[in-house]
Amino acid sequence: MLTSCDNNKALFLGIDGGGSKCKAIVMNENNEILGTGISGPGNPLHGIGQATDSITESALLALKDAGLTHINLSEIYAGVGLAGVNLPIQFKQMQEWQSPFKGLFLAHDLLIACLGAHHSSNGAVIISGTGSCGFSCIDDQEVIIGGHGFPQGDIGSGAWFGLQAVKQVLLSLDGIAEYSIMNDVLLAKLHCADATSIVEKVAGKKATYFAQLANLVFDAAEQGDNIAIAIVTEGAEYINSIARVLLTKMPARISMLGGLTIRLKPWLDKNLQEKLAEPLSPPEVGAVLFARKELAMQQNLSVVQSA
Amino acid sequence: MLTSCDNNKALFLGIDGGGSKCKAIVMNENNEILGTGISGPGNPLHGIGQATDSITESALLALKDAGLTHINLSEIYAGVGLAGVNLPIQFKQMQEWQSPFKGLFLAHDLLIACLGAHHSSNGAVIISGTGSCGFSCIDDQEVIIGGHGFPQGDIGSGAWFGLQAVKQVLLSLDGIAEYSIMNDVLLAKLHCADATSIVEKVAGKKATYFAQLANLVFDAAEQGDNIAIAIVTEGAEYINSIARVLLTKMPARISMLGGLTIRLKPWLDKNLQEKLAEPLSPPEVGAVLFARKELAMQQNLSVVQSA
Repeated sequence: MLTSCDNNKALFLGIDGGGSKCKAIVMNENNEILGTGISGPGNPLHGIGQATDSITESALLALKDAGLTHINLSEIYAGVGLAGVNLPIQFKQMQEWQSPFKGLFLAHDLLIACLGAHHSSNGAVIISGTGSCGFSCIDDQEVIIGGHGFPQGDIGSGAWFGLQAVKQVLLSLDGIAEYSIMNDVLLAKLHCADATSIVEKVAGKKATYFAQLANLVFDAAEQGDNIAIAIVTEGAEYINSIARVLLTKMPARISMLGGLTIRLKPWLDKNLQEKLAEPLSPPEVGAVLFARKELAMQQNLSVVQSA
Repeated sequence: MLTSCDNNKALFLGIDGGGSKCKAIVMNENNEILGTGISGPGNPLHGIGQATDSITESALLALKDAGLTHINLSEIYAGVGLAGVNLPIQFKQMQEWQSPFKGLFLAHDLLIACLGAHHSSNGAVIISGTGSCGFSCIDDQEVIIGGHGFPQGDIGSGAWFGLQAVKQVLLSLDGIAEYSIMNDVLLAKLHCADATSIVEKVAGKKATYFAQLANLVFDAAEQGDNIAIAIVTEGAEYINSIARVLLTKMPARISMLGGLTIRLKPWLDKNLQEKLAEPLSPPEVGAVLFARKELAMQQNLSVVQSA
């Protein structure tokens, strides 16, 4: 077991703070994951206090999982990737946090996802989970495509697929669109008898609610349902479009991430499917890689300055 | 001037309670509008207390406008049409209100719109304002098409057009869709420099916000902008579909109502445009017609019962 007095200087925390949960790992200098921790929402868009609490809690859980409770957070550097910190105001608020770590290196969630997927700062990722987004980082030049949120953006995301299902079922129940297998599945899933009761159930619901309905679109499409096939084709075409823009940047590798990947991938352009490389590691590993790189830069800088 | 002691028995209040305002008229037995009043939101979906306050206030304002402040609300019957009371729970809550009127006859907003437009209980209306909806009433058989709300329904409504504009501008700024005139117009209108600042402006906004952006789609379409034309064509096709379903019910007349009518009508099927009859009166007049009919039925019923 590692102890505080041997190589905890080589330990790093990697933290991925998302809208529904915050994931932490503790990693040694050989890139071995010693422990993991999961806590509540870590996205500062929903409150800085909740995000910083979740970050600290997930880090403590990861240390506990690694059997390293004798080590203080103040002895370890942390790389933290958070959704929303590409917005300057969110970045500034998080930077002002008096974190419990020896040092905190802050990045947005897309960058740590990309670093994790490729173990390199030259790569691109397409993400489709609750939301959707494309990102590339090549020679420190970052490009973000999409990620505009629900309902104005995030085409091809779980939330978008769920909303399309609801829209089409309502049209079908009104006699405006043809019958779809999704009609019966959605009515049963929401315990509804008609269009009015569906509307009462879904009115005002957020992206995460609609994302839970995404799978029924893929199920129906795979059974040959024309309306579902049209939805999946439209969503997949948007993902293809994101990929086309990212590929013009000539990334060394491109990967697809997020909970919908397994369902969406077979519907993408065959060329793109062949290009998609398996992500090497999850975003929290990318957060450690980011922290190590930033720390090395800081130390090189201080060597240069003192020279 | 009418006085309390002559023909105020023939006076009726007609009230149209919508999501943003509540409109009242006071009408004499010759169907002449003696006064009008406008107050705040009258939709019970946003709170029964606010709705009942708005209804009372608009009625008092209409009496004042007619120079009839010496008449009490308790001397006059009111027909009240409200969005949302097609849902049984809302209808029951409004029925339980101890109204200040001599009697209150409650209908949903679509029925009074239809009665107002046609001065008859055989007709159909298509509505496109903030939301969209189709309705027919023939031999007391009512049919509602659409009206499922934002963002899951209300295709071809102001809110839908506004949201489509935002979606397409974001796609265009990302390089995924072609350039549209709407890009520059929307950026200027929202005082934004880029896609990220548009997202910050529109995130979490309601239907009424997006509806304010609808006109820019029509402006661009009329200038030949391909993306705007595609949006308007899709919205118009949904309205055509509503009309096709309603026309199978063989209504005596069909009209189009709502703030977007003037912009949308030229884009509808030529056949439908020719069939659309001008609405004879606004919904608040329909509310009076509804109240008169219901009162007559009550009185006939009591004659029959006492015979």
